[in-house]
Parts: sequence; C-alpha cells; structure tokens
Amino acid sequence: MKKKNQKVNAAILIIGNEILSGRTQDKNVSFISNWLNSKCGISTNEVRIIPDIQKKIVKNILELSKKFNYVFTTGGIGPTHDDITAESISKAFNLKYEFHSEAYKILQNYYGKSKFNDGRKKMAKMPRGSKLIYNPSSAAPGFITKNVLSLPGVPSILNSMIENCKIYLIKGSKVHSKTLNLFTVESNISKQLGLIQKKYKKFVDIGSYPFFRLGKIGVSIVTRSVSKNKLYKVNKDLIKLVKIKKIKVLKI
Amino acid sequence: MKKKNQKVNAAILIIGNEILSGRTQDKNVSFISNWLNSKCGISTNEVRIIPDIQKKIVKNILELSKKFNYVFTTGGIGPTHDDITAESISKAFNLKYEFHSEAYKILQNYYGKSKFNDGRKKMAKMPRGSKLIYNPSSAAPGFITKNVLSLPGVPSILNSMIENCKIYLIKGSKVHSKTLNLFTVESNISKQLGLIQKKYKKFVDIGSYPFFRLGKIGVSIVTRSVSKNKLYKVNKDLIKLVKIKKIKVLKI
Repeated sequence: MKKKNQKVNAAILIIGNEILSGRTQDKNVSFISNWLNSKCGISTNEVRIIPDIQKKIVKNILELSKKFNYVFTTGGIGPTHDDITAESISKAFNLKYEFHSEAYKILQNYYGKSKFNDGRKKMAKMPRGSKLIYNPSSAAPGFITKNVLSLPGVPSILNSMIENCKIYLIKGSKVHSKTLNLFTVESNISKQLGLIQKKYKKFVDIGSYPFFRLGKIGVSIVTRSVSKNKLYKVNKDLIKLVKIKKIKVLKI
Repeated sequence: MKKKNQKVNAAILIIGNEILSGRTQDKNVSFISNWLNSKCGISTNEVRIIPDIQKKIVKNILELSKKFNYVFTTGGIGPTHDDITAESISKAFNLKYEFHSEAYKILQNYYGKSKFNDGRKKMAKMPRGSKLIYNPSSAAPGFITKNVLSLPGVPSILNSMIENCKIYLIKGSKVHSKTLNLFTVESNISKQLGLIQKKYKKFVDIGSYPFFRLGKIGVSIVTRSVSKNKLYKVNKDLIKLVKIKKIKVLKI
C-alpha cells in the first residue's frame, strides 16, 4: 500500500567507456530521471559513470544497491566482448551467469534458428533468477536482478523499454516543480532567496540557475516539493519578492 | 619530467539537483573529458552526479580525491543559498572557509564597490590556501584545493575557464583513437572482435557501439590506445575482418 509522501529513491549507473571518454554525450540520465519522477514518484539521488571493467561494475553495483531502493544500469548488455554488465551483476550477487530460458526463446524466435549465433545467444545470458524487461524495438530483453534493473545504452531502445520497468517498481510520491524565469542576476536576490529557503526548509527545495536567453541574462528559480500546497505558498512569497525588486518575469 | 606512457587520471563530480532531477541535460562531462584527454593526456575514470547536500559533497570529495590524481567539480560556486561547493570542500579537508584576498579584489573591481553585495562577496569565499582558476567571462574565479579543481556549472563559463586549469595539471599520455563505421550488426562480428581484443589486450581498448544513420543500422568500432603504432596494427586486423565478411564501410 502506498503511504502518504513515501520516499522512494534510485541511482543510475552508466556503464561505458564511450561516455567517460567524452566520445558520446549521455542522454539516458535526464530521460530516466524525468520518467522515474513523473511516472513513479521515484527520485534519482545519485548517478555514476564508470568504465567497462568488471571489478568496478561489481563494486558499484554492491555499493549502490545497498544505498538506494533501485539501481538502473545502462549499457553493456549487447553481444560483443565489451558487454559485461550481466556477468558482472552475477558476480556481484554471487549468482550463476546462465541462459534465461524465456530470453533464449525470444531471441531465437526473433533471429530464426539458423541466424542465432553465439553473439546473439550471449544476450540471453543473465544472473540466475533475473526477470525480464521486454524490449519492443530490438527483442534483446533487459532484466531485473534483486533491486538492479539493467537496460541497454542506446537511447532509442532504452526509451522504448522504460514502461516495462513499471511492474517491478514501488511507487513513491511525485515531486512537483515550478519554474520562475526572472530577468535579474542571482546576486540581486540571493539574500532574500536564502531566507525563503530557510522558511520552507523541510518542505521545498529552491534551486537557482543562471540562463542566457534572447541576448539577456536571467535566473531560473526552480521550486520542488511533494506538496502542491507548499509549492503554491513558496511561489506566492517569490512573487512578492519579484514585485518588491521590480524584476521582469519571462513568460514561456 | 614526463615519463613515457605516464597514466594520469581524473574524476568529475557534478554537483547539482538540476542535473539529477533531469531538468537540465549535463554537457560538462563530455567537454571536460575530451579536453582532459586531448590537451593534457588525462583520462577521466569516473563521473558522479550528486545533489546539493553538504554531507554528500564532503563524502564524495574525500573518496574521489584519494582515488584519482585530480577531481573536477562543476556547479555550486555561485552567490545563492544552494551554492555550497566551496564550504563543503573546506569541511572535507578541514580547512578554514574564508575570503580569498585576490578573488575578493577581482570581484570588487568587476562589480564596483557600491554593487559588491553579500551574495557577490560569497563568491570570494574559499577553502584556505586555494589557488584561483581565472574566469574571463564573468569574473568569479574557480579554485583548486589540494587536487580538487572547482568550476562553475554553466557550460559557456566553464568552457571559457578550462584552459586556465592547465597550469595546475601534470600531463599524461594522450589516448589516441580511431573509429570504423560499419554497415553490419554487432552479432555478425562479435566473435572475431573478441579475438582481436584478446590479441591486443594490454595495449588497445576496442569498443563496439550500434548506430542508426541514413535509415540503416550499423556499428562503430572504436579503438583507443596511447600507442599510435598499436592502433595502426589493430586497425589493420579490423580491415582484414571487414574484407572477409564483405562489410560496407561508412566513410565520413
């Protein structure tokens, strides 16, 4: 049963030399994080990007799976030698790394018996006891092992699979947010903003982020809370401040 | 003195709720990582993204600064209440958090005495003994404390400051890379690719990344090594494989 304001959190573990080296721009963090909050009320509390090295994957899986309700991994579940996520998770949890019979059938069916080669078969190998996360775009399934959900690194495929993670997740309370875009500089309002944050300390997070738009500089004030009511109240205080300081608001 | 094939590594610590929540797409990881490798021969070996919470910043600074030659932090050095990077680093290293006299002068000069308010003054507060990383775009300097270099989160400002980090860094050996874009699927070459990787295990990293281009699917084979000679050799083997398998190569 869902409790009121239940906090459920997650970490994201990006596995891949191509992200670390700067060759590829990661797009999965913001996608997963937005989806988790808006659809499941789950907050992403930490992200790590690590190389394709088994020892490092094992260590991070163990650390993060203890600290957070869920861990999402991306990358390293394809057919090549550098795809070592499934084997590493098996090692981390001391589970046998073996063919998952349903995954095997799905892949054999997708490729046809004659084209189901060793590389493709590798994608059916998982830690014993894993459950599948179905893949509507390219068949090879993701999987959940204990509280660790493993997804591929290619954003379009990951995006097509994310809804299939839902059945494995306990829902938390969604964090609502409001953004106020002001044509001012941070240091013009930092003192008052600090006081407002203090007043709502336990209930609302206030973030302040400079922006450059239409050739002008400004500040986005982002308020976030599980309580819509508290969010309304803090924004009333912010509007008061904006009026006193005679700051122009950018309407989008 | 620079030794041959000297390995120097770094971690990047992204501090900011806006990245974790998915509101803002991070662009600093790939920029810093590319710059570190191409200009300084430094490999980025781990990235973490954490919220604006002092306890977490302290813990991560201590962990990463022990494990890596350098730690780059981004975000949290502005004038508002959620900018707590400098104070947290002071805490981590047990250093006094105080005005840096040169930073104070730079900022006072930039804003003018009458407009140098408390928020702006905050940007001159740093861990005792820090050295400045000059900021040509908006004056407020970054700083280096022990082996931790702190930069702002706004990409355009960070980018303008990065060259000023160079004087504090020991250079390592640059990792060279070559990319071969093939019109095939990973599982068609995964076995042979694994064998080639085995052959060059200690010297070359081979990565395999699916792509979708011009309505076709393909695989980018990325080889990386500090040795140009080894890179040439492994690519000769790859070209042989491509010819045997009659795979079309995408020329860019």
